[in-house]
Amino acid sequence: MFSDLQYELSKLQKLILLTDGSITTLLEVITAKPVTVSTLVQKIVKADNEIAELLEIEEGDSINYRVVTLRNVDCAKPLIYAESYTPISRLLKEFKYDLMKADIPIGKIMQERKIESRREIEKIEIIFNDEYSEIFDVSYHVPMLSRTYNIISNNMVLIRIIETFPLTSFLRFNA
Amino acid sequence: MFSDLQYELSKLQKLILLTDGSITTLLEVITAKPVTVSTLVQKIVKADNEIAELLEIEEGDSINYRVVTLRNVDCAKPLIYAESYTPISRLLKEFKYDLMKADIPIGKIMQERKIESRREIEKIEIIFNDEYSEIFDVSYHVPMLSRTYNIISNNMVLIRIIETFPLTSFLRFNA
Repeated sequence: MFSDLQYELSKLQKLILLTDGSITTLLEVITAKPVTVSTLVQKIVKADNEIAELLEIEEGDSINYRVVTLRNVDCAKPLIYAESYTPISRLLKEFKYDLMKADIPIGKIMQERKIESRREIEKIEIIFNDEYSEIFDVSYHVPMLSRTYNIISNNMVLIRIIETFPLTSFLRFNA
Repeated sequence: MFSDLQYELSKLQKLILLTDGSITTLLEVITAKPVTVSTLVQKIVKADNEIAELLEIEEGDSINYRVVTLRNVDCAKPLIYAESYTPISRLLKEFKYDLMKADIPIGKIMQERKIESRREIEKIEIIFNDEYSEIFDVSYHVPMLSRTYNIISNNMVLIRIIETFPLTSFLRFNA
């Protein structure tokens, strides 16, 4: 089923991968239900060489590393798995509080805190990783769609986000 | 058919009315075709009392008034009708050139010029207006869906936009 290297994505999958708006708003309209954030990991780490370069900070600088799933309130199964990296020094105090202490979607934090930004999509990939299969409760051979983008504010990367979902999700608009 | 005062909007209509991302990107994915801008009106006008208040400028200040339709390149029928008001004094030189001289969607101008912003939806309405019926080539009794939002940059309204489309458009995702 997934042996071919070419995949025809659904319009809905393309929309999720290409949107430059809030992914939470998009998911709430698509599913016609509120979307909630479940935080899996939330910690302050020191930037290694690779992530420092991507975020344009110094190696060893503090970054907030957050892993969440977005899901409908009445459903355990995740819609989207999202990892994010945020240089601590670039966070406003109130934003930092929301991001680190509460299960609030990033788009909503930015909206409430009236943060001006732009989103720059860096790459869209198909990946194979059994850990994701377990998180989404799909077969091991199901490929994952992933996009990496930066939310840029004051000409600096405020947040780097990697969003992932199975190729078998969002096939139809009314799913 | 449209006599009832309650309307059940399609998910796609809700998405177009609620998105805080680029409407052009959204339309391009939905229609799976490039979207082009046709400029109907483009002029510099003096702000009257009402629009000055909405844009938080002085009465008599210069604003750029632009009316466009967004449509697929191979189709004469508009997807969306959009009016916009922009205080001239708040435009960067390059942005002004793009906005006034060329048929480029606002979202694409902002992306290319790397302008940071946020979008604030002010209202969503159902309106009845025969002029729109003619533009969209639909019957006079078809109601129109309309949303008004501000693109805010540097804490000021950069562009105020009113987007309109018929209640009979975007009923299905694959339309």
